[in-house]
Amino acid sequence: MNIPLIKEIMTLSPEGQTVIIRGWVRTKRELKHLVFIEVNDGSCFKNIQCTFDLSQFTDQSISEQLAEVSTGVSVEISGKLVPSPAAGQPVEVTASSISVIGKATAENYPLQKKRHSLEFLREIGHLRARTNTFGAVARVRSRLAFAIHEFFQHRGFQYVHTPIITASDCEGAGAMFQVTTLDLEALAKSGKAVDYSKDFFGKRSYLTVSGQLEAETYATALSRVYTFGPTFRAENSNTTRHLAEFWMVEPEVAFAHLEDNMELAEAFLKHLFNVALTDCREDLEFFNERIQQGIIETLDSVVNSKFTHMTYTDAVKELEKNAGAFEFKPYWGCDLQSEHEKYLTEKVAGGPVIVTDYPKEIKAFYMKLNEDGKTVRAMDVLVPRLGEIIGGSEREERLEVLENRIKELGMNPEDYWWYLDLRRFGTVPHAGFGLGFERLILYVTGMTNIRDVIPYPRAVGQADF
Amino acid sequence: MNIPLIKEIMTLSPEGQTVIIRGWVRTKRELKHLVFIEVNDGSCFKNIQCTFDLSQFTDQSISEQLAEVSTGVSVEISGKLVPSPAAGQPVEVTASSISVIGKATAENYPLQKKRHSLEFLREIGHLRARTNTFGAVARVRSRLAFAIHEFFQHRGFQYVHTPIITASDCEGAGAMFQVTTLDLEALAKSGKAVDYSKDFFGKRSYLTVSGQLEAETYATALSRVYTFGPTFRAENSNTTRHLAEFWMVEPEVAFAHLEDNMELAEAFLKHLFNVALTDCREDLEFFNERIQQGIIETLDSVVNSKFTHMTYTDAVKELEKNAGAFEFKPYWGCDLQSEHEKYLTEKVAGGPVIVTDYPKEIKAFYMKLNEDGKTVRAMDVLVPRLGEIIGGSEREERLEVLENRIKELGMNPEDYWWYLDLRRFGTVPHAGFGLGFERLILYVTGMTNIRDVIPYPRAVGQADF
Repeated sequence: MNIPLIKEIMTLSPEGQTVIIRGWVRTKRELKHLVFIEVNDGSCFKNIQCTFDLSQFTDQSISEQLAEVSTGVSVEISGKLVPSPAAGQPVEVTASSISVIGKATAENYPLQKKRHSLEFLREIGHLRARTNTFGAVARVRSRLAFAIHEFFQHRGFQYVHTPIITASDCEGAGAMFQVTTLDLEALAKSGKAVDYSKDFFGKRSYLTVSGQLEAETYATALSRVYTFGPTFRAENSNTTRHLAEFWMVEPEVAFAHLEDNMELAEAFLKHLFNVALTDCREDLEFFNERIQQGIIETLDSVVNSKFTHMTYTDAVKELEKNAGAFEFKPYWGCDLQSEHEKYLTEKVAGGPVIVTDYPKEIKAFYMKLNEDGKTVRAMDVLVPRLGEIIGGSEREERLEVLENRIKELGMNPEDYWWYLDLRRFGTVPHAGFGLGFERLILYVTGMTNIRDVIPYPRAVGQADF
Repeated sequence: MNIPLIKEIMTLSPEGQTVIIRGWVRTKRELKHLVFIEVNDGSCFKNIQCTFDLSQFTDQSISEQLAEVSTGVSVEISGKLVPSPAAGQPVEVTASSISVIGKATAENYPLQKKRHSLEFLREIGHLRARTNTFGAVARVRSRLAFAIHEFFQHRGFQYVHTPIITASDCEGAGAMFQVTTLDLEALAKSGKAVDYSKDFFGKRSYLTVSGQLEAETYATALSRVYTFGPTFRAENSNTTRHLAEFWMVEPEVAFAHLEDNMELAEAFLKHLFNVALTDCREDLEFFNERIQQGIIETLDSVVNSKFTHMTYTDAVKELEKNAGAFEFKPYWGCDLQSEHEKYLTEKVAGGPVIVTDYPKEIKAFYMKLNEDGKTVRAMDVLVPRLGEIIGGSEREERLEVLENRIKELGMNPEDYWWYLDLRRFGTVPHAGFGLGFERLILYVTGMTNIRDVIPYPRAVGQADF
């Protein structure tokens, strides 16, 4: 623990001081009496080069040690830190000793020094963080998760752990996973009805699809709160954009209106992109070069833009002007498609757009009804290249209006007794939004398959490791 | 959003400037022509007092507004910030206007100005964060969650989201919840065997009991990682110390031995307690006064102590000297009971103790075997008043030894193919530990029922909200 990470060693001034390098070998090259070993410990993108000048060693055992070195081997190397003559690396190590800690024989180790397909790497999820791409994804993910906490904590928000297991499907946001301790084998053979009184929670229970409703109970006590936790959808869609298990961030703010919500969302995204651009620069440069050109430019432009505000009604008018260009013809009342969202950001606004005041029919029951009786104070934040990255709204805080809306949708107000209580007792205007964390990581890294931006993706037929 | 929180207003220098207060009324008192309203917005423990001098108002509507004010009502008050003559509050507001935003009629609102039992408050989990106790718990919880991230991020650790749904019960740590999309009603009536090929993941799947094994896969790529997420136990134990759903923190460090692990755990706890003592002072003073005397002193003493190190064998010797005092007679090979752990911290060491090198029979399969062949490099961190707060170990990094241990326990090495791969390819010594977040919060707040330190507790028969 007292031995610095390679990331730290990289920033030292090279004055011939002794350093110890611990990590995994990425490459070994030999050139006459020189052996070059590049070591990575995952703390940063770059490897540190360790050079062995065999003409300087009197002990022959060094050759035996070096013979065991191949890609994936774990080593401890000591030597002197010196300036590097090579481009792109500030320092290197003139090595004086090496211990091979754990071998990785070239015949068996799946990660050899060549380019592997992302599909292949998905099959070895337990090893893929050892590659350039997945190491970089992991670092960006970690840094941005922390940036989310920093953003909210520094603004007086309290982090709330909303429940994962829930007995209510309040949001009705889609298919849910059931959680049970019933013995399914015995149940199947029983031929009888299910007796939920025997189940762990005494009733049907599920994995949460959103922490929002519970977050609202805390926002109406602590004023500003946020959640950041796993959510689940049992949707049978095998795409590059859906996961059965994903992490969501959901701030909720009391005494806030839609305008405050828009301001918060804009500041939030700019903060995250700024952190990525600043603190994950090396990793982003790799993504920009090898995964998707232009991502740094896009992030830079979002950070420096002023988000355009546009009502849904105005957005549809813009789209209708160009209706011929779309596969799905836009009309008032339609859900905006990806192609529409891209058009709004890339062609109409030339930057991020917040679309507000959607028809109530295409949005959730808890969104505040406008005076026109037709639209709700919803907002979707759209960014160039991706489309929707954030969805949110001001909430309906008027008891009667909310109850009517629940009934209108054929739901039972009694199921929402506690949610309605927030409107019965000291109700306040409030607003919030949701950000899918993996969508954010896709956007920042330029990766295209959502299964590649979470350590162990869960999807139809996939729960390995 | 641009209106400061009460926490921020409390720190302003009172110079008669205009301020706007938004929050929920805790109390209203009347004294001749003066009306005192205490408002809380959950941003801090303290209420801010707003004084209405009715002799100064010409508009009679003020009385109508004030008549609607009762406990739980949401209000917006504006006035001038002035020094407070009252003890314990630096500032107060000489109010010039008030709007009642949301009412809370005294007949219906469950949270009146009196002391409510914790049992009663558990039934209104959606409102209990509006009380002194649960507001304070929520703030401490939020601050310490952030402190966990700060501690690890500043030390070069990467945050890893290990999976929640898993198809393997690798750790064998206890009863698991099954996750399914099978139609249980149809299944029950079928009278046939369960066909898991029809289930969402194509096989039996569960909620995770620990992210450790997956964290190890990332530690052996990124060197230093930690998890912080929900974990689950379907144990049918209805106690004040168990939850079915709880949050765990699990750091894992490559190239670390047991000694490094002990050092890390000690620094970690001291950091967390320091943050609580410094940043949650007001809340802790409340707990110290009203919930459990002496908690501040205990935390202070832990922060200033040097943790005692003791092998399990030595610990048992100490306990045997005093065997008569225990309900469970201590002997070499026994699991340490709560009473033993308390004795070690309070009587033997007079402070925190890290007990190491437990018999392999009472510890998990992945812990590194000592040369004696009988004990493993496990460690439990014990603190006064609570007992075990952290459990961890150096991991078995030798492929053959680990395989033998798995077989010895009647488990199947093939189920652990990916975990064993970490030992096949570039294995390194590594170590880590787990901290139950709710146990930490219990310790810091002095609360005694674990259901009171998580927003929505899940336990046998309990999945409300």
